Amino acid sequence: MSAFRIGVLVAVCAALCAAIVLPAARPALQAQDSLANDPKLVEDLVYANRILYQQEVLDGFGHVSARSDKDPSHFLMSRSMAPALVTSIDIMEFDRDGEPVDARGRNAYVERYIHAAIYRVRPDVKAIVHSHSPDIIPYTVTGTILRPVYHVSAFLRLGAPIFDSQEGFGDTDMLIRDNKLGDALAKVLGNSGVALIRGHGFVAVADSIPIVVYRAIYTQLNARVQAEGMKLGTIKYLTPGEAVKAQAIVEATVGRPWELWKSQVGKIE
Amino acid sequence: MSAFRIGVLVAVCAALCAAIVLPAARPALQAQDSLANDPKLVEDLVYANRILYQQEVLDGFGHVSARSDKDPSHFLMSRSMAPALVTSIDIMEFDRDGEPVDARGRNAYVERYIHAAIYRVRPDVKAIVHSHSPDIIPYTVTGTILRPVYHVSAFLRLGAPIFDSQEGFGDTDMLIRDNKLGDALAKVLGNSGVALIRGHGFVAVADSIPIVVYRAIYTQLNARVQAEGMKLGTIKYLTPGEAVKAQAIVEATVGRPWELWKSQVGKIE
Amino acid sequence: MSAFRIGVLVAVCAALCAAIVLPAARPALQAQDSLANDPKLVEDLVYANRILYQQEVLDGFGHVSARSDKDPSHFLMSRSMAPALVTSIDIMEFDRDGEPVDARGRNAYVERYIHAAIYRVRPDVKAIVHSHSPDIIPYTVTGTILRPVYHVSAFLRLGAPIFDSQEGFGDTDMLIRDNKLGDALAKVLGNSGVALIRGHGFVAVADSIPIVVYRAIYTQLNARVQAEGMKLGTIKYLTPGEAVKAQAIVEATVGRPWELWKSQVGKIE
Amino acid sequence: MSAFRIGVLVAVCAALCAAIVLPAARPALQAQDSLANDPKLVEDLVYANRILYQQEVLDGFGHVSARSDKDPSHFLMSRSMAPALVTSIDIMEFDRDGEPVDARGRNAYVERYIHAAIYRVRPDVKAIVHSHSPDIIPYTVTGTILRPVYHVSAFLRLGAPIFDSQEGFGDTDMLIRDNKLGDALAKVLGNSGVALIRGHGFVAVADSIPIVVYRAIYTQLNARVQAEGMKLGTIKYLTPGEAVKAQAIVEATVGRPWELWKSQVGKIE
Repeated sequence: MSAFRIGVLVAVCAALCAAIVLPAARPALQAQDSLANDPKLVEDLVYANRILYQQEVLDGFGHVSARSDKDPSHFLMSRSMAPALVTSIDIMEFDRDGEPVDARGRNAYVERYIHAAIYRVRPDVKAIVHSHSPDIIPYTVTGTILRPVYHVSAFLRLGAPIFDSQEGFGDTDMLIRDNKLGDALAKVLGNSGVALIRGHGFVAVADSIPIVVYRAIYTQLNARVQAEGMKLGTIKYLTPGEAVKAQAIVEATVGRPWELWKSQVGKIE
Repeated sequence: MSAFRIGVLVAVCAALCAAIVLPAARPALQAQDSLANDPKLVEDLVYANRILYQQEVLDGFGHVSARSDKDPSHFLMSRSMAPALVTSIDIMEFDRDGEPVDARGRNAYVERYIHAAIYRVRPDVKAIVHSHSPDIIPYTVTGTILRPVYHVSAFLRLGAPIFDSQEGFGDTDMLIRDNKLGDALAKVLGNSGVALIRGHGFVAVADSIPIVVYRAIYTQLNARVQAEGMKLGTIKYLTPGEAVKAQAIVEATVGRPWELWKSQVGKIE
Repeated sequence: MSAFRIGVLVAVCAALCAAIVLPAARPALQAQDSLANDPKLVEDLVYANRILYQQEVLDGFGHVSARSDKDPSHFLMSRSMAPALVTSIDIMEFDRDGEPVDARGRNAYVERYIHAAIYRVRPDVKAIVHSHSPDIIPYTVTGTILRPVYHVSAFLRLGAPIFDSQEGFGDTDMLIRDNKLGDALAKVLGNSGVALIRGHGFVAVADSIPIVVYRAIYTQLNARVQAEGMKLGTIKYLTPGEAVKAQAIVEATVGRPWELWKSQVGKIE
Repeated sequence: MSAFRIGVLVAVCAALCAAIVLPAARPALQAQDSLANDPKLVEDLVYANRILYQQEVLDGFGHVSARSDKDPSHFLMSRSMAPALVTSIDIMEFDRDGEPVDARGRNAYVERYIHAAIYRVRPDVKAIVHSHSPDIIPYTVTGTILRPVYHVSAFLRLGAPIFDSQEGFGDTDMLIRDNKLGDALAKVLGNSGVALIRGHGFVAVADSIPIVVYRAIYTQLNARVQAEGMKLGTIKYLTPGEAVKAQAIVEATVGRPWELWKSQVGKIE
């Protein structure tokens, strides 16, 4: 084959590749540019999805969000999809009422109002996780207070309050599908780091993505440990003084488990 | 290389490919052609087998079937083998009495009468799962009613009825090995989505494959969560009103977990 | 490089390879030849080790044996090593007293007397598993009788007897380290398929390797299911009539799970 | 190809290899040279980290150390990082007060005083594990004594004492962050092999790395088994006579599980 023909073949291949790759790449670049000032914010949010799935806090359901650093009345969250598969292209922006800013045909999670409502009344909160953890459900349906059994879950402090949609709303489909329900949940959460949702799951909040991921994982672990402890005898929980001190020191070292969890997820795409 | 030589190379490659691919493809094509109008029906049934195995609802035993879309009095199910290894070539067709239509030497599951009997009396049912789930057995042998503890298992409604072969049949080998036993089980199932089988397992039914797979997985999860809840205290189950509403909304979004489970199985063959 | 020099290099490499490979290969060939008439016996025994490890019935400890088909007073078992790593070269032959026939420097399991003693008094038994399963220990130390909760563990019949070395031997190191202890265990086993050993584990026996592997796996599963059932309420176990019938039918189909378990282990070496 | 050209090729290859390998090897060689007389000491310590992580005794937190064989008042332990990722370069040396000998900018674990304090008062101890095992926490917060339920955990002897920082120190952050707390923990440990730490975890000690890893793993397993046994009935624990004998024999064969665990970790780096 002549050099000219080889050159034509190469040009055709390159054109085909460009036609396939570039359209997929361009939205990602656009997404990164418009959503956040800090490029790590979107990347950490994507990792949070993958980590929470791998650590079995989220399955096909549940979600994690982060407050926008461009407009603090807005927040970022994936479109409606399984957290295991989220990439940066899937991250959307929502306004203070939980409505998408630039949907571009992507569906939003029905329960985005959990996030919108909490961001509205908790200026200290920068990240939120909502999970259907099976380990938590028994507490939600028996009115058992989840309390810190060991130092790693000290953020539970005096216990996680329980929201029950029956109170005030009667028979619903159990989802937080509008701002009224979101506001009622945020009211029960108050200043806590975690609130349980009867027959549904829990919500964890924090002032950064690594810490909210940490809290979600250890809320679930504490639930397992507390249940086992209650079968052995009467539990001596962390005192309020111990909880304040332990939470401060453990959350100051959240970088170590965060990096380990990221390394376990590995490179995304 | 001359054009003639390139042409010979291409022809040789094509012949080799055909020699490898066509023999493998032909039986599959034949299977696909004769069993269903919708080619996705057989493919979804194969995925259902693999998903239920991966999600630990089925092990070496248990099976899943789908009503035929060619002849609604017939149904499709794998030959007698481990669900983990089922491919489209293994799918067989059964008549309304549960007998194979075109066995071609393949053995059928002894308990195909579970499926035949339910399809006969439940025209709304399009797919059935039978499982020996260890999480369910404790309920079957203590007469404990499995009830919806959280929104994802709302389809359990007022609770899963329990079939006991002792009643009416005395000492048997515990298998549903003929239509009389199948009819008795179908009678206990009534209009429910799930029935338990004492000392044996459970059966789940639905009007599509994704939904019956979903119900089987969450029947098992609800069993674990309810057992833990009963150890913590008195459970506040979903009210009838909550169950109706939650079931509708959750099953409308079954596509999300279904696609996730399929992606976890990956490409088959 | 000249053809002569290439030839010298090749000859040197071939000689090196032969020197490494052949000595390792030859004992394997010799092992296969001398240990059994049926070559599948040794292969099935190796698979049994790997399957029981993968199914978490054996860990670093525990063992499985098979009666010799050359001399029925002898039996075959791996040398003292982790079951996860057993290959055909590791299989040794033991006489009726549990002593190695041709040790060739390989160490035998301290507890080979469990196997020797049972083979001596149970001519029907062709294969034995000894496991330290954590799921079984709670039964052994509380005197709780392990009984068949569902059809797959029907072989437990009227319940597994419990052997306690304290009775007759006082304080020991808990191991069955000689024929006196082995005989005492075999006496407690009687005609059962399974016996528990206080503070130690259990032993399962059967007339073939696939069935003893099946029984060991389902003994462990039944233990988990029965424990959960006892926390829910009063268990209705299989009746004697149901157990006889269910055991016959389930063990007739042991080929299906056996092939699945072998395929999960994959090719050995 | 001429001999001269072959010689040039070999020299170039050797230079390339050296350029890649030597820089990576040199720090490791330096680390190996300065830290221990026995090169296996550092290698076993690295394996201990990986094994304990894989066996789920350590997660992102927890640590394992070994007494120095150069200076018995010193000990070796990884820098502050997740045990899953430890390599030989990460091993540091600490003096009798728990302070780093040659930090070179590396951070030490806050709780190194657990190790320092125990090495000071227990000349028999050559290796220590500190874990936050969720299976242990229920015992620590209910005052339940962990006792040997089966022969593999005979080293628990008469039971594991429980250290509670409230006693003597009031509200703390629950970490053993100085030598006063370390001394108090070592006093409660006394001559035992294991001590529990309320609301925190446990510490295991032994006279070698393989044995301390073994004890940590089986302390956790015994916790699960004992909890299940206590739900079934009254447990007949190992008698003191049985415990002494069983511990001796089981720990004499620690090489078998140790080699299996190492093979499961595989090659490091």
